Amino acid sequence: MVQYSPTIDSAFTALADPTRRSVLERLGAGSATISELAEPFGMSLTGMKKHVRLLEEANLVATQKVGRARVCTLVPYAFEGISTWLMRLDRFAQVVERTKGER
Amino acid sequence: MVQYSPTIDSAFTALADPTRRSVLERLGAGSATISELAEPFGMSLTGMKKHVRLLEEANLVATQKVGRARVCTLVPYAFEGISTWLMRLDRFAQVVERTKGER
Repeated sequence: MVQYSPTIDSAFTALADPTRRSVLERLGAGSATISELAEPFGMSLTGMKKHVRLLEEANLVATQKVGRARVCTLVPYAFEGISTWLMRLDRFAQVVERTKGER
Repeated sequence: MVQYSPTIDSAFTALADPTRRSVLERLGAGSATISELAEPFGMSLTGMKKHVRLLEEANLVATQKVGRARVCTLVPYAFEGISTWLMRLDRFAQVVERTKGER
């Protein structure tokens, strides 16, 4: 069952942080190195590396060493499972709401 | 911007726990009291109340006192914002992936 998956746990935990959500939005515009990600936040490389590691462990972001830099990319279809699950819940909620109105 | 919203923070934090996701799935089948929610988990009422409070604070679940029981219901459209945001990210990820292939 979807809700016991450790991958889903780690994905939601990764998404609960606003900095990590901003990083994902930035990566939506294209791949970026850790320093490119850190810069707009005025964050240390070490701090950003920790966020990226969490996103990587949740399988939302993939990284690749290119020369001395580490390039980060969004993992395609990584968000599909959880957004489908959330939309299904939303449909349920609307059905429950309508049924309540009919009673 | 979506990613700085404290509501989104609390929604993702609420969703990071498998028990709370199961509670949401259960509520997708219709409203339920705290005891009805606690029973299948073999959980104390106090334990379930804590989970429900977190879901309520995240505005994913609404509760209403009916006699001596507290009835919990999914909030309609509560998941719409975050599922839309996730699907948008997914589309971005697919575009980035395609662009990479074309280089």
